[in-house]
Amino acid sequence: MIYDCTDSLHKKFLFNREVKRILFVPYALHDRDSFTKTARDKLKTLGYEVDSVHETPDPVDAVRKAEGTFIGGGNTFRLLKALYDKKLVTEIRKTVLEDGISYMGSSAGTNVSTISINTTNDMPIVYPPTFAAIGLVPFNINPHYLDPDPSSKHMGEMREQRIIQYHEEPDTPCVLGLREARLFQRGKQTTEYEPGSDLSFLLTDAQ
Amino acid sequence: MIYDCTDSLHKKFLFNREVKRILFVPYALHDRDSFTKTARDKLKTLGYEVDSVHETPDPVDAVRKAEGTFIGGGNTFRLLKALYDKKLVTEIRKTVLEDGISYMGSSAGTNVSTISINTTNDMPIVYPPTFAAIGLVPFNINPHYLDPDPSSKHMGEMREQRIIQYHEEPDTPCVLGLREARLFQRGKQTTEYEPGSDLSFLLTDAQ
Repeated sequence: MIYDCTDSLHKKFLFNREVKRILFVPYALHDRDSFTKTARDKLKTLGYEVDSVHETPDPVDAVRKAEGTFIGGGNTFRLLKALYDKKLVTEIRKTVLEDGISYMGSSAGTNVSTISINTTNDMPIVYPPTFAAIGLVPFNINPHYLDPDPSSKHMGEMREQRIIQYHEEPDTPCVLGLREARLFQRGKQTTEYEPGSDLSFLLTDAQ
Repeated sequence: MIYDCTDSLHKKFLFNREVKRILFVPYALHDRDSFTKTARDKLKTLGYEVDSVHETPDPVDAVRKAEGTFIGGGNTFRLLKALYDKKLVTEIRKTVLEDGISYMGSSAGTNVSTISINTTNDMPIVYPPTFAAIGLVPFNINPHYLDPDPSSKHMGEMREQRIIQYHEEPDTPCVLGLREARLFQRGKQTTEYEPGSDLSFLLTDAQ
């Protein structure tokens, strides 16, 4: 199971399996120690022990042995580059899709769980070897999706326009804007989903 | 001379040299014909003829022969990828830095004129071969710079925080936030510049 989290989804993550220890991935922020402490303190109150992948001598082995993996938010480019540098992209995909290990991502951690990071909102502060990501789901996500603000004086492109520009490119997958949920499909009408909607069709029909 | 334009700088572009014809680069938007028509109609009212690089059989040759080059705004990733695909990055750098040809960029066209596109606000809808850009100036720019909005409910990172994250990476150049102008230097205090300020020191002292 794959979750985009902020609060109560932590609990679902727990209930899904007999997860007692979570492998935390702090690569999206510069200060990995501080980020790990924050995550560890919070998850402890929810009953989990936390190992951080940056504290282990062998990150690939840590992923292979993890009961559950949680990738925290921050900068998506920095995160994806580190995941490739540590050779974790394929490993995480395998543990989730083949072994059924739980995965939870927050913001940047959600972006890297999709087909690609092409629809992140983040600044490209480092250059990853590709924008292709872990690919746990056959679509892309735009976290923190915001509606266009007609009163804004900002001259740059608005979020919706950016996603439409993405769909001007050939062979682009659908994009789920996670406000509550707004689904962009290349060549189709954009659709709004209420909280609690069943979006499981995206797992098989996401083009 | 290099200009970030929106309005009156068009005129400076003209006054700088005996420029009668401008080479327009519409790669940042999907509909290049429509974008060219908009630019052509506007620049005609200012007294210029416009050739668009996408209408020429040999873009490299068009850049070599241009009296002045204007790169329009849109998506910075799409623009930079197209500039590399057409082998124009080095050519434009040469014409400006060695031959003194005028360059004008708007938004994405400003980003690609700097060291790298690492501080663009745009969505990474395509994957360019590198984030290194034309490098007409020894610093980076963040166009449409916005101050943090304390009332915002947006959960993603704010602009200032994103640029600070960029400077957490090693060997990163200074970043000029183009509102009026706000200068970010790695390890130094952020400085505000009023409109009309002389920023020419950036050309030699931009680390």
